[in-house]
Amino acid sequence: MQLDAGCELSFEAKEPTPLVLMLRPRSGAGQWIIREEYQITPAVNVTEFTDIYGNLCQRVVAPTGPFSIHFSASVQTADLIDVAKGAPYTPVEELPDGVLHYTLPSRYCQSDQLGNLAVEITKDSEAGYDQAEAIRRWIHENVTYQYGTSDSSTSAVDTANKRIGVCRDFTHLGISLCRALNIPARMVVGYLYQLDPMDLHAWFEAYVDGRWFTFDATQKEPRGNRITVAYGRDAADVAFTTQFGAMTLNDMKVWVNAVDEASTEKN
Amino acid sequence: MQLDAGCELSFEAKEPTPLVLMLRPRSGAGQWIIREEYQITPAVNVTEFTDIYGNLCQRVVAPTGPFSIHFSASVQTADLIDVAKGAPYTPVEELPDGVLHYTLPSRYCQSDQLGNLAVEITKDSEAGYDQAEAIRRWIHENVTYQYGTSDSSTSAVDTANKRIGVCRDFTHLGISLCRALNIPARMVVGYLYQLDPMDLHAWFEAYVDGRWFTFDATQKEPRGNRITVAYGRDAADVAFTTQFGAMTLNDMKVWVNAVDEASTEKN
Amino acid sequence: MQLDAGCELSFEAKEPTPLVLMLRPRSGAGQWIIREEYQITPAVNVTEFTDIYGNLCQRVVAPTGPFSIHFSASVQTADLIDVAKGAPYTPVEELPDGVLHYTLPSRYCQSDQLGNLAVEITKDSEAGYDQAEAIRRWIHENVTYQYGTSDSSTSAVDTANKRIGVCRDFTHLGISLCRALNIPARMVVGYLYQLDPMDLHAWFEAYVDGRWFTFDATQKEPRGNRITVAYGRDAADVAFTTQFGAMTLNDMKVWVNAVDEASTEKN
Amino acid sequence: MQLDAGCELSFEAKEPTPLVLMLRPRSGAGQWIIREEYQITPAVNVTEFTDIYGNLCQRVVAPTGPFSIHFSASVQTADLIDVAKGAPYTPVEELPDGVLHYTLPSRYCQSDQLGNLAVEITKDSEAGYDQAEAIRRWIHENVTYQYGTSDSSTSAVDTANKRIGVCRDFTHLGISLCRALNIPARMVVGYLYQLDPMDLHAWFEAYVDGRWFTFDATQKEPRGNRITVAYGRDAADVAFTTQFGAMTLNDMKVWVNAVDEASTEKN
Repeated sequence: MQLDAGCELSFEAKEPTPLVLMLRPRSGAGQWIIREEYQITPAVNVTEFTDIYGNLCQRVVAPTGPFSIHFSASVQTADLIDVAKGAPYTPVEELPDGVLHYTLPSRYCQSDQLGNLAVEITKDSEAGYDQAEAIRRWIHENVTYQYGTSDSSTSAVDTANKRIGVCRDFTHLGISLCRALNIPARMVVGYLYQLDPMDLHAWFEAYVDGRWFTFDATQKEPRGNRITVAYGRDAADVAFTTQFGAMTLNDMKVWVNAVDEASTEKN
Repeated sequence: MQLDAGCELSFEAKEPTPLVLMLRPRSGAGQWIIREEYQITPAVNVTEFTDIYGNLCQRVVAPTGPFSIHFSASVQTADLIDVAKGAPYTPVEELPDGVLHYTLPSRYCQSDQLGNLAVEITKDSEAGYDQAEAIRRWIHENVTYQYGTSDSSTSAVDTANKRIGVCRDFTHLGISLCRALNIPARMVVGYLYQLDPMDLHAWFEAYVDGRWFTFDATQKEPRGNRITVAYGRDAADVAFTTQFGAMTLNDMKVWVNAVDEASTEKN
Repeated sequence: MQLDAGCELSFEAKEPTPLVLMLRPRSGAGQWIIREEYQITPAVNVTEFTDIYGNLCQRVVAPTGPFSIHFSASVQTADLIDVAKGAPYTPVEELPDGVLHYTLPSRYCQSDQLGNLAVEITKDSEAGYDQAEAIRRWIHENVTYQYGTSDSSTSAVDTANKRIGVCRDFTHLGISLCRALNIPARMVVGYLYQLDPMDLHAWFEAYVDGRWFTFDATQKEPRGNRITVAYGRDAADVAFTTQFGAMTLNDMKVWVNAVDEASTEKN
Repeated sequence: MQLDAGCELSFEAKEPTPLVLMLRPRSGAGQWIIREEYQITPAVNVTEFTDIYGNLCQRVVAPTGPFSIHFSASVQTADLIDVAKGAPYTPVEELPDGVLHYTLPSRYCQSDQLGNLAVEITKDSEAGYDQAEAIRRWIHENVTYQYGTSDSSTSAVDTANKRIGVCRDFTHLGISLCRALNIPARMVVGYLYQLDPMDLHAWFEAYVDGRWFTFDATQKEPRGNRITVAYGRDAADVAFTTQFGAMTLNDMKVWVNAVDEASTEKN
């Protein structure tokens, strides 16, 4: 499906504030960026680089006063996520070199402390895809989704204890439980069609049977039509915005619309 | 200046033909991509990767029959190129590691064979920027610009001998003569505002005084407002399209327009 | 000074166990590997790759039974570390792209939670080198060095509370406090001449005034003659050995000896 | 087999001369460096970096006067090269991204000009391994191996015409003919056990059936026990030494010896 997605962020900076943004999705194996638009107001100098995970990052210094970012894109996405019940665990010795670091604990994913829970949740599952799916379902059924119950310091261990949080927390817990079983797992941030309420979203991917699969613990049956903006070990790596100073986000709009194919053809 | 630039390529493939395209510019230190649009007709699966030079490359298999590509972008560019008369030569031992390979000969830039000519052209120049500028000016004054006089196998040694060619040949010769003096030089392909006749363009950059400077031997006084699409050692690395099979380019349109600032502000 | 350093690790594996080793130092700007020897017994297939931080990593599957690793190297090192009192803070907007991720929190370095402590410790210091040095000295004076008081799950927040630990904990705390002030900081693991008792060691580097400086909170006056084996965000990234399965380290020997220059010349 | 290999290079520099060396082999999928020693006399500052192909490169400025390099290593190698008659051609669209640039022409490998010869040589071969092997055999049978018949500017087109050269020329021609058929091919430089006369050596690898295979046109039946020092597109990329100034190589020794397994065990 072709999606028109985007966001508008309005900040107010009390002093010039360096920002690192991760808002530009990359075309790749799973999605094709047909059109995109990236505007920053007031116009300031922006540079872009590729981080250690391959994400495009934009650097800017927001001047004192109002500062806004408008990003929109038309992206070709897959309607369904791949599901592979029974797909086997990939032994660590067969993992590609570049996947290995996704087995390690990270800031919000203390997989080294969640081994018992992971084993318990997956005790009836075949090693591999079914373990990751059991973890996803367990989180969906046992953690309450509620805004305002977690913050930027909340980690997977916290969420395992409190059993409440938002997409970011669900994701951190899913990643941690997979890694605790030596299944590589990474965080994905981006857009999801028909998310309700609409917002920027986060989910995770687990590496089994020689490739990455999509898992989303916030949904009963995870749907497709996702736009990936960035991959990383956890939210520390893939914040949409990382600010180094005093700056307030006053307003944020996010939208994801299906493109009317008929009207597209006329363009 | 904000430029609207783009190209439209129409192919006809006799059989399914793999293509590698280098048509998407990257935001970076020198330019900011405000808007872009990349359409391929008929719609086929496209993937994108980053090559060893950091360029974004698109892979596609063109199906039998007509195949067209439409790319357009709005890009913020600098009105002037930097000029630095007298800027000193950077000794090889002070070159950054990642710049060293731009001192080596390459397919179309046999710098190992053009040392005498390079020394002769620059015998009255200070080491550094002035050498590169003397090379640029010498090419501008001694090589005739004429379409249809060179082809995809023409190298810098050929151009040094025949003294005729197009922007690609001027560029290969400029690069080779710089490298012959141990000045790192790389090819740039992209768009140039007010190029006449309008076309995709090529020029070169030389590394002196610790940074890259722009040189364009096709112009008397090189102007700014350039959009860089890709960097590489020579045309073998940075072809806009590399095709692996029988495919004909039937038509190509290229445009670069200044955006009317007044109308832009209204948006 | 030329150092002969090395380690010998003896494991016992209950079942074939994948291992990732980080034991081979790289020659670079700060050290030159004159000689090295890397033996694994029994002889098994080993492959090597470079991780996202540039470290050389060795992959191996330890067979059931005894398994030992012998690594030794002769390395040219600097006798003194660089000290630069008063060297200024590098503003975030001037950090190289590749340094930015060292400002982010990580598994054992929850810099997002240690801002108050960092500000308190450095309230009388100039921004930059002096802040990092104040942090280093504060840790040296306020945290007790004692084996057996921390484990592989101990983080900087734990150490800030308990004020006891080993070199790894001192390092995590130092890194976290620097990052809390937006000073990039990274973990270094390797060898230190005259460490007592001799062991593998960890310290940190902070990025100020446009370059990395060495800090070691375990020493009153940090000395030079260090061999860097790996860099990373924290201990999760730079474990000498990461094992994926049941395996016991039965014995470990570490040595660092000054090479008698006279006898060297005879070779 | 375990090999002790190395080289000793003695230079005389008329003035301080920057050098880039490629003498340190890397452990990887095909070889394991058990021991190595790298000495430079007189002792000068050396730094090391990884180039765009993943090779370890050493940078040094040779001072005026005599300058010598001694490198030796003990390396575990495979006794036989893999041979895969009938292994199929990998279509371009299935090549990994990082392999694509090995299909392009380069300084010494003008594959764009050797298509007719490539087709002629391989007209009776199945697409894939058999084509590369037909090319290898054709070169072995039709090009005379003779020292002193080529120099650093000799390219594959020259060798195709003159039909005489050394290992470097054989390799460039083999690479070019493979690439002319859209088979990725790369140059390998290193050591070969029982090469006669002993010297540093060059051969090529071609990518078929999803992996790289070894080809050596200088031998009737290519043997194993090869130590790879570097990979690249051609000799411009993988010179053992690249010097930027006036410097004479006065003497070069190269050795490759089988390690007596019995005596090894005693160590």
